[in-house]
Amino acid sequence: MRGKFITFEGCDGCGKSTQLKKLSDYLTEKGVAHVFTREPGGGKISEQIREILLNGKNGEMTDECEALLYAAARAQHLSDKVEPALSEGKLVICDRYIHSSYAYQGYARGLGVDFVKKINAYAEESYSPDLTIFINLSPKDAFARKKGADENDRLEQAGLAFHERVYEGYLALAKDGKNIVTVDGKGTPDEIFAEVLTALKKANCL
Amino acid sequence: MRGKFITFEGCDGCGKSTQLKKLSDYLTEKGVAHVFTREPGGGKISEQIREILLNGKNGEMTDECEALLYAAARAQHLSDKVEPALSEGKLVICDRYIHSSYAYQGYARGLGVDFVKKINAYAEESYSPDLTIFINLSPKDAFARKKGADENDRLEQAGLAFHERVYEGYLALAKDGKNIVTVDGKGTPDEIFAEVLTALKKANCL
Repeated sequence: MRGKFITFEGCDGCGKSTQLKKLSDYLTEKGVAHVFTREPGGGKISEQIREILLNGKNGEMTDECEALLYAAARAQHLSDKVEPALSEGKLVICDRYIHSSYAYQGYARGLGVDFVKKINAYAEESYSPDLTIFINLSPKDAFARKKGADENDRLEQAGLAFHERVYEGYLALAKDGKNIVTVDGKGTPDEIFAEVLTALKKANCL
Repeated sequence: MRGKFITFEGCDGCGKSTQLKKLSDYLTEKGVAHVFTREPGGGKISEQIREILLNGKNGEMTDECEALLYAAARAQHLSDKVEPALSEGKLVICDRYIHSSYAYQGYARGLGVDFVKKINAYAEESYSPDLTIFINLSPKDAFARKKGADENDRLEQAGLAFHERVYEGYLALAKDGKNIVTVDGKGTPDEIFAEVLTALKKANCL
């Protein structure tokens, strides 16, 4: 039987890593065959694409080129890592996926969701997640929890404005999307994890 | 006044390079401000993408990843080289462009034109050529003219089958496309060039 494909989404600092760690421990303890992954996913080709994306000297990269490179790395990652695990019946859990592209590149960078959807149509159509868990924590709350946002720091504010657009994007996606469950990010890690488990069970992923 | 954007298309061995050389000489002689270019176009980022595409060790690259990388390099090339030249009022002549992606990746590789159109929608919508010249020479004629296709060479035959699909793609695109002019590739270089010039003048590109 083919495995299920789960993705985790949310703003930077929303507590995603903590939840992924908890889920990893839980699945290992329960003996559930699973794979944790994240894009670009460690494949040889994806890594080469990643190097271009992260190279500080590539500052003149256009938003369109950037979005297409992410989509290219995604297509390869699906083939190298996600498809083999799903076909072995494993639960595949991916830290960020297409909703990140829609929120970060479509909404926050201003490319528009339509553009990003078009170039990711292959991933959306062939590898639509069985469940996407959106951990709902606003950037303000995330900043405050992490280190305290300095109201007078202009760069911090610019960063915050960008992340606010990401957040608005996520809220819109969560409202309209299918197979996406919103989990309140303001609780304690254990409270949030209880909601994550409930969502997974309800979607027959556990 | 904004410059015009011309692209040249056709199967391998159709005589494109000869025509581009003739056009270059002609434009230089006439003192027409112009730029010849080809994808990925020599920009720093496009070159990095090109390295991934041409690296012999990347044999496991999926067709989808390949097509997305070409589209990424295209977006960057448009920004780095095509847009600046057009905005300076220069005639921009590009050796292969979106029709190559449709013919090679959409038709011959079997990804489908819809897939390739979607990921190249940005290029198609924002940088649609004012004129595309398709030099119509079948792969059989091109092979025969070049070196004579060896009927018994299996690899040659496999190559021919691939190029036949490319050719069928081009014929379909030329039939349905806008701003695309078909030039008979079976004539002498001078006969073909006369047709090229006629097409350019008719489209107000000269």
